[in-house]
Amino acid sequence: MLVVMSHQATQEDVDRVCETIRAMGYTPAPMPGAQRTAVGLVGNDGRVDDSLVIELSGVARVIHVSNPYKQVSREWRPENTIVTIAPGVAFGGEEIPVIAGPCSVETEQQILESARAVKAAGAVALRGGAFKPRSSPYSFQGLGRKGLALLALAKRETGLAVVTEAMDDEGAHLVAEIADCIQIGARNMQNYSLLKTVGKIGKPVLLKRGMAATIQDLLLSAEYILAEGNPHVILCERGLRSFDTTSRNLFDLTAIPVVHQLSHLPIVADPSHGTGRRAVVTPMSRAAVAAGADGIIVEVHPQPDRALSDGAQSLNPEQFGDMMRQLRRVAEAVDRQIAGVVAGVA
Amino acid sequence: MLVVMSHQATQEDVDRVCETIRAMGYTPAPMPGAQRTAVGLVGNDGRVDDSLVIELSGVARVIHVSNPYKQVSREWRPENTIVTIAPGVAFGGEEIPVIAGPCSVETEQQILESARAVKAAGAVALRGGAFKPRSSPYSFQGLGRKGLALLALAKRETGLAVVTEAMDDEGAHLVAEIADCIQIGARNMQNYSLLKTVGKIGKPVLLKRGMAATIQDLLLSAEYILAEGNPHVILCERGLRSFDTTSRNLFDLTAIPVVHQLSHLPIVADPSHGTGRRAVVTPMSRAAVAAGADGIIVEVHPQPDRALSDGAQSLNPEQFGDMMRQLRRVAEAVDRQIAGVVAGVA
Amino acid sequence: MLVVMSHQATQEDVDRVCETIRAMGYTPAPMPGAQRTAVGLVGNDGRVDDSLVIELSGVARVIHVSNPYKQVSREWRPENTIVTIAPGVAFGGEEIPVIAGPCSVETEQQILESARAVKAAGAVALRGGAFKPRSSPYSFQGLGRKGLALLALAKRETGLAVVTEAMDDEGAHLVAEIADCIQIGARNMQNYSLLKTVGKIGKPVLLKRGMAATIQDLLLSAEYILAEGNPHVILCERGLRSFDTTSRNLFDLTAIPVVHQLSHLPIVADPSHGTGRRAVVTPMSRAAVAAGADGIIVEVHPQPDRALSDGAQSLNPEQFGDMMRQLRRVAEAVDRQIAGVVAGVA
Amino acid sequence: MLVVMSHQATQEDVDRVCETIRAMGYTPAPMPGAQRTAVGLVGNDGRVDDSLVIELSGVARVIHVSNPYKQVSREWRPENTIVTIAPGVAFGGEEIPVIAGPCSVETEQQILESARAVKAAGAVALRGGAFKPRSSPYSFQGLGRKGLALLALAKRETGLAVVTEAMDDEGAHLVAEIADCIQIGARNMQNYSLLKTVGKIGKPVLLKRGMAATIQDLLLSAEYILAEGNPHVILCERGLRSFDTTSRNLFDLTAIPVVHQLSHLPIVADPSHGTGRRAVVTPMSRAAVAAGADGIIVEVHPQPDRALSDGAQSLNPEQFGDMMRQLRRVAEAVDRQIAGVVAGVA
Repeated sequence: MLVVMSHQATQEDVDRVCETIRAMGYTPAPMPGAQRTAVGLVGNDGRVDDSLVIELSGVARVIHVSNPYKQVSREWRPENTIVTIAPGVAFGGEEIPVIAGPCSVETEQQILESARAVKAAGAVALRGGAFKPRSSPYSFQGLGRKGLALLALAKRETGLAVVTEAMDDEGAHLVAEIADCIQIGARNMQNYSLLKTVGKIGKPVLLKRGMAATIQDLLLSAEYILAEGNPHVILCERGLRSFDTTSRNLFDLTAIPVVHQLSHLPIVADPSHGTGRRAVVTPMSRAAVAAGADGIIVEVHPQPDRALSDGAQSLNPEQFGDMMRQLRRVAEAVDRQIAGVVAGVA
Repeated sequence: MLVVMSHQATQEDVDRVCETIRAMGYTPAPMPGAQRTAVGLVGNDGRVDDSLVIELSGVARVIHVSNPYKQVSREWRPENTIVTIAPGVAFGGEEIPVIAGPCSVETEQQILESARAVKAAGAVALRGGAFKPRSSPYSFQGLGRKGLALLALAKRETGLAVVTEAMDDEGAHLVAEIADCIQIGARNMQNYSLLKTVGKIGKPVLLKRGMAATIQDLLLSAEYILAEGNPHVILCERGLRSFDTTSRNLFDLTAIPVVHQLSHLPIVADPSHGTGRRAVVTPMSRAAVAAGADGIIVEVHPQPDRALSDGAQSLNPEQFGDMMRQLRRVAEAVDRQIAGVVAGVA
Repeated sequence: MLVVMSHQATQEDVDRVCETIRAMGYTPAPMPGAQRTAVGLVGNDGRVDDSLVIELSGVARVIHVSNPYKQVSREWRPENTIVTIAPGVAFGGEEIPVIAGPCSVETEQQILESARAVKAAGAVALRGGAFKPRSSPYSFQGLGRKGLALLALAKRETGLAVVTEAMDDEGAHLVAEIADCIQIGARNMQNYSLLKTVGKIGKPVLLKRGMAATIQDLLLSAEYILAEGNPHVILCERGLRSFDTTSRNLFDLTAIPVVHQLSHLPIVADPSHGTGRRAVVTPMSRAAVAAGADGIIVEVHPQPDRALSDGAQSLNPEQFGDMMRQLRRVAEAVDRQIAGVVAGVA
Repeated sequence: MLVVMSHQATQEDVDRVCETIRAMGYTPAPMPGAQRTAVGLVGNDGRVDDSLVIELSGVARVIHVSNPYKQVSREWRPENTIVTIAPGVAFGGEEIPVIAGPCSVETEQQILESARAVKAAGAVALRGGAFKPRSSPYSFQGLGRKGLALLALAKRETGLAVVTEAMDDEGAHLVAEIADCIQIGARNMQNYSLLKTVGKIGKPVLLKRGMAATIQDLLLSAEYILAEGNPHVILCERGLRSFDTTSRNLFDLTAIPVVHQLSHLPIVADPSHGTGRRAVVTPMSRAAVAAGADGIIVEVHPQPDRALSDGAQSLNPEQFGDMMRQLRRVAEAVDRQIAGVVAGVA
């Protein structure tokens, strides 16, 4: 339930609405906005009787949010949420940041080389896993804390923002120390304990859609984070499980405009996992920008054929540079810009 | 098996290769090309012994096509096939034709109004079903022959090319009389009798991907048409069945660059059926063009809310005009152009 | 809409209801039943105004069938439909007939050997394709008319009923001449022209569920056949497309009790296509009987390793005999019996 | 890699093989078996050079396990693993235990009433969630520690074994204190941190298949637990995400015989989540037993219509009693027995 206050409503009016909601056994969430003030009601699991609220002074109207999610919904907040993870790296506005880097942090040389290469081509954030969720316990599981230290080094060297994955509570706190944005992977999209933890930590979160998650599931998982008081959530489409193994996953770009209708949160696209085929990463990143993506996250490795994981879907730096040039043109065609200053360009 | 002749090969060399293939019990398919002459071997269901052919005069090399499809493969024919359904309406080249119109032909006024509106906005072909495959026997099944007559009328009035669906052998012959391109719907993608019939008719065919068809299934169905001697096949991505009913289907735009890798045939995208939601048709048509689509087929109805079928996914003429303006910008950003002269534009 | 007459209703009452329905522009479908007489209304595409009918003499009540299908629904006909394709081969009652035989008819020896072997083990009907829908135009497409003649021979020799597939109108008429039941394959489940044709022919039809068809889609396709006046439809679950290629398809046995809730039509299970793995055909046929299947259709080949198609999922005669022994025990455990007299058993 | 020792091999031979494996940089896992002794090699991520091992004294042969999973594979251990969670409650042998109870622990009265009812009908273990993974943060999340205390009470009162879910590390330790078997839910099947934790705890684990997990994914997740030294893993099929929403999930019973081929671990079936429809739970539990399930886990609630979660799929005690009677007959038909002594039966 969302209580929309009139333009003439005073602070006292708002306070009285909050008190009434508390008296009803729920938690009020006042939201001062540019155009109107509203008070959300959190903690209910179904329809709430609005008779006590609707007659209060300053109340313009009461909206019953019919969707199971609330704080993430466009109804709850009509303006786009802009999530800024570092200076100049903002998701949800006109600029489209590109996050690039290897699947895994492997060595100091590899991550530094990757960071310099993606920065040179125009990326504003570095990706790279220190903790890797792998289907097999015998596959490379990432460098862990040492990987985080190398990411911190790459950040100091290049100034790139860092986005990296956390797989559990302990990891989330470690990642939060060095990263600008904590990634929750597809396999953990419904790990509610972890969602609550990153909700409490309060840092920006990149939440990847699960392999069989509906858009509603994705929004509900984001709701877990917002419900803990952390509004800095970036959604990410990364492909769904499908019967056709020609591509690794079925990249659901329609999710982008649909999320924009349903939610105020930004959504980025991951064409590397979304397709799993290097040769189609560039056309599909163009398509994502044309569909309205608020960012691109892409795997780039200095030597894809030697990568310890996901080499088959990684671009090399030259291919990434070419991709960036193409994205700039498509972004312009939809009245946006790829974030960041291009080296050698005014 | 594909026998690639050397540049110095004479017609006699080619003839001898064909004779040898016939003697082996197969059918030769000579393909004079700009850069090389090749002879395909049709009719085998597995690997063929090439020893009789490889030593013949003028033979450069023998390629064993490992895919189950052959004539549709990029290996078989490296250059793009350009399918021209009417003057100025060619799929597979730099220009991107847009096919637009209502789901079903309903009345003379409706189809003429639709045709004029989509032409004014820049479409070069008209869509509209006279024979409609409907899940329920009690739903509107189309006007049949009368619908075809109305499409012929609209074609005479506007000069637009006509694309319309056939559901059986008899219908295919009727459609072929008035249409420039025969559409095979998703439900009939593996109706092999119908595929053979349109293969024999020889007119251009728009072959829609089935709701649970892999890309390989789609290419094999196209192979049925080519195997009958009809090379004028345009593939169409129109969305797959999925667990998420937020959209009507899961629009697999990755199929576009993947088909371009595997096949020389053009592929168009249908964002109306691909998404089933009017509000996302325009962004997803932009995405399709950015992904490399060779055409767009889209539902436009003068009064979507009164449409007898698929109203919820149809654009009105104004929305379509806006879509076309956006598509022109995206097409330019990927070095292509939307086909057709814009009214009032030089 | 279904008009249920009272027990006291006279034939005149029924006639007047039919006239009124005709006057409303629809077609009446009177259904004399053991417990009540009812008149269905066919031809509407949505809710019908019942005011003219509800007050007529002898009308007990009017049921608005909310599902898009009607004549196939349990609401329309509460008793099970029993489809008898040959003496002693009835689907939908207590007995469970088993249909067995090779994927394709290959040679006289092969089909006779198969027929004798499956009969000896207790099958009451023979399967075997003369017309084969194959993904590739270069795969074995069946013997056609010659295959039908061999099936007719096997029928004369063994007395087994024959079930075989038709892929188009011409084939349907040919199949109807020799077969006891016309099979419509999964790929043609939504080939509405073919459904109408077999509806008009009037012979029993085995309708296989499409690879991505919902249960509602399946029932609507059956409705096409019933709407042509042919009530002899046997549904068949044969597995759905899925992301897990461990099995060829995802065998949806839950469809069996769900169809029994929604419809009065019998439903059989095809564990050969449903799983695609010989080693699990027997346990899954047991599971199908335990779930309530009204029949089993299974691939048996005298020499599976030499089969021209689907060898990997065919049982040999010995394995089939073992399967039959297991099925008899499971059928008894659910108070049913496998149809047919076992050789050597009283 | 699996080193199979000959029957004459001495303990010294085995020790030398272990030393050699350690010298190669891997971990040896000696497995004394009834029929042969074998030494597994753990820690490799791909093919290992066997030249140093194959010539050692007492080595019969070296098997390269081609699957990405090892310790869970049938190749690694040919005999069935029997997981005993409490006296008389063993999964993987001839007896089939039934686990029953409510979705969530709600009140003392509800869980005691449930426990007594399911015990009276023949269940040997009680299910009931104290920690509930719910899609929405506003849905009932379970009673937590209080719920565990109520389960402990129900266990003391009835003697039933207890199976309940853990969602995170802290919860896993709490659950381990009172439960006989820790359940990992479908959403956490690839929460590798949690899998490692329950691997270390060492208690029996019921591992549910994820909604879009292949059978290989499921086996790999089990491998995570075994790799920590905990062999007591029971797999569970509970339905997959599908395009057909007639049922809540697509219950993949074929997974049961397929898992039995690939792995030595027991697998149980959950027809409540697998179908989501109360009316088909009983036929599908029969089908699961007929397919070879090593156990059934089913939701039973004293008053399903008042359940705080999953009421629509819960049986009431009377329906559960009827299900048990039917399962006993089907179990006998496949030469097994439902575990437990029936009240009032010798």
